[in-house]
Amino acid sequence: MAENRFDRGRKKMEELHGTYGSSVLARLDLVAPDLKRWIIEFAFGEVYCRPGLDIKLRQIATVAALVALRHGGDELKSHIRAALKAGCSRQEVMEVIMQMALYAGFPAAIGAVADAGEAFAELDAGLERPAPPASLE
Amino acid sequence: MAENRFDRGRKKMEELHGTYGSSVLARLDLVAPDLKRWIIEFAFGEVYCRPGLDIKLRQIATVAALVALRHGGDELKSHIRAALKAGCSRQEVMEVIMQMALYAGFPAAIGAVADAGEAFAELDAGLERPAPPASLE
Amino acid sequence: MAENRFDRGRKKMEELHGTYGSSVLARLDLVAPDLKRWIIEFAFGEVYCRPGLDIKLRQIATVAALVALRHGGDELKSHIRAALKAGCSRQEVMEVIMQMALYAGFPAAIGAVADAGEAFAELDAGLERPAPPASLE
Amino acid sequence: MAENRFDRGRKKMEELHGTYGSSVLARLDLVAPDLKRWIIEFAFGEVYCRPGLDIKLRQIATVAALVALRHGGDELKSHIRAALKAGCSRQEVMEVIMQMALYAGFPAAIGAVADAGEAFAELDAGLERPAPPASLE
Amino acid sequence: MAENRFDRGRKKMEELHGTYGSSVLARLDLVAPDLKRWIIEFAFGEVYCRPGLDIKLRQIATVAALVALRHGGDELKSHIRAALKAGCSRQEVMEVIMQMALYAGFPAAIGAVADAGEAFAELDAGLERPAPPASLE
Amino acid sequence: MAENRFDRGRKKMEELHGTYGSSVLARLDLVAPDLKRWIIEFAFGEVYCRPGLDIKLRQIATVAALVALRHGGDELKSHIRAALKAGCSRQEVMEVIMQMALYAGFPAAIGAVADAGEAFAELDAGLERPAPPASLE
Repeated sequence: MAENRFDRGRKKMEELHGTYGSSVLARLDLVAPDLKRWIIEFAFGEVYCRPGLDIKLRQIATVAALVALRHGGDELKSHIRAALKAGCSRQEVMEVIMQMALYAGFPAAIGAVADAGEAFAELDAGLERPAPPASLE
Repeated sequence: MAENRFDRGRKKMEELHGTYGSSVLARLDLVAPDLKRWIIEFAFGEVYCRPGLDIKLRQIATVAALVALRHGGDELKSHIRAALKAGCSRQEVMEVIMQMALYAGFPAAIGAVADAGEAFAELDAGLERPAPPASLE
Repeated sequence: MAENRFDRGRKKMEELHGTYGSSVLARLDLVAPDLKRWIIEFAFGEVYCRPGLDIKLRQIATVAALVALRHGGDELKSHIRAALKAGCSRQEVMEVIMQMALYAGFPAAIGAVADAGEAFAELDAGLERPAPPASLE
Repeated sequence: MAENRFDRGRKKMEELHGTYGSSVLARLDLVAPDLKRWIIEFAFGEVYCRPGLDIKLRQIATVAALVALRHGGDELKSHIRAALKAGCSRQEVMEVIMQMALYAGFPAAIGAVADAGEAFAELDAGLERPAPPASLE
Repeated sequence: MAENRFDRGRKKMEELHGTYGSSVLARLDLVAPDLKRWIIEFAFGEVYCRPGLDIKLRQIATVAALVALRHGGDELKSHIRAALKAGCSRQEVMEVIMQMALYAGFPAAIGAVADAGEAFAELDAGLERPAPPASLE
Repeated sequence: MAENRFDRGRKKMEELHGTYGSSVLARLDLVAPDLKRWIIEFAFGEVYCRPGLDIKLRQIATVAALVALRHGGDELKSHIRAALKAGCSRQEVMEVIMQMALYAGFPAAIGAVADAGEAFAELDAGLERPAPPASLE
């Protein structure tokens, strides 16, 4: 069963986040492999697999939450890509972020639209994985 | 034009939040009428009126953000009601809140499902306005 | 295996939080039973069961985090009780909370010492479950 | 010297917050007397005693921060009273709170204007100390 | 009227933030022009234009809030510059930031004094616009 | 007495954080020397010197809080080093961070395990001070 959850989670993660998501999580392999396992088993194998809420709506909820909590960078960009894969238009993603100005303030929205702009540019450039963080180069 | 924004905002607010929303904002009439005006003109007359994102998706984004930022009580309950009016099922609302455990932690989700439970119970009881805060009684 | 995780988690939860913890989570039975299951399976059956960090240290980390994130009330009181059951003295709990003034600011610490005072008083009075929230009475 | 800091702090606290502030901090006497001592010695005896920033400006900064961090209730109300004693008008206090909608979002501002309304009403009623919290009655 | 608000806002923004502020917001032109319009119309054309609170006091409130919410970088530096233009001394800005240690914790204050030091150094070097973010070079 | 607190604090800071901690705080010398003095006198000379909570437990509480509040970089790495010096194993530090996923969400834990990985690598490389921030080079 646990193995099943892991397999189910890995499949769901690849379906939603593709190569980009795997690259982001690969950073955990050395330092915290069990944290990565939790994300695959619990986040993807349990939460994102649930019926009752369409995956497009799940990604909108996640993008909204990440902006509100000010998680930017690869974390946000990976979920923005997933939102697009799930059927959101770029405009819909931008509208979600802009709406967050009402609840999390303007500076939070300003930072997140910059991340979204980067995500769109990376997609247009055909990039399939995040740039390695400067500190690990 | 500004009058138009105000009128457009008031109409949008009533469409989305009904009597309940007006009751929540009525508390601002005495202490900060211009804050109420901003909410009507800017939040409802400008942001929630935009095309490009379906109102059901806007409400899902807002519920996610409020849970992530831990705004509960009448604020969250009013947006949960609005999400239901916009076509979300109760299950969809609960799924959004539960998913927030991944991003905002379990205690944030626990608090918000309690608020959602109250919102559903108040709807079942036919309540059309929030209970007055203890301190104003 | 999943059943095992659930059983293992329930046992761990009862060991750490006793009747008090069960009462807090019982509120989820009606509105979000799967959120309760996640807490038992994942938080207690997976995280709190891990070797590598003594349970007393786990509770200190949790109390520190709850204070820093300003989760008070029954959530904090339940973990303060668990810290005491895990071998912390009341003084140690208070020192953890007071130290948080450095990182989360004084108002966060002030609020949490009040919760701790309540938790100690309820223990002295032999209370085994949290008071029902006003709104559910 | 430390004694001097304590005396200086107590004097500054009384000058800024009067009876109301002492009542708020009195709650710490039993549970965390050293936290109260830190607040008097460090916050009032060290920070609020500094030259280089007028006390009216210090109170405006504190009200803004409390609203942004969503510390409401007696904490915020005590600093609103202190801002008024330091020469702010009620309108100035309200403007500071309303401006926070831009940076902390509308729900944070809505909650704080309610607290400010209560603070003004309590002042008009001649109340010199906060109502005891329900849980300590 | 809306055009008036936009013009009034742009004038106010230039008055308060000069070339530096325009450069920060110019980044929004491509990805989210309406977010930029909201900031000009609502934040500058509506909020910062209000009577009832001196602009120096408004900037102190904003610097305090940005530090408390941990918005650093160009956002904070732009408002520090605006505070100085509005008549604050560098010492007053530093005092506001240092005071935030009480409410947002020491690490938040440490990060913000570093930003302030950069802002002062950039002013001394005569820089009139923020350095382009690494990712856009 | 104040001098004593300063000396006591400096000694405690060196005992806990060694050269690394001094280097982090040295950045404050020019811009905010009194903030540095507060940290030495109050945080180290007052809080961390207290009996009643073992220093290992204090460092675990601090690491938990920094992760929960999302203070990363040198601040977190300095406290991770201090936790190791105080007797924590690397595994214990990682467990504390991973546990924070429950309370602060997965993205907060993911970011912090990356910082911990860097801290461990820097220790293995014998680095005794943080890399200078890019902006000060």
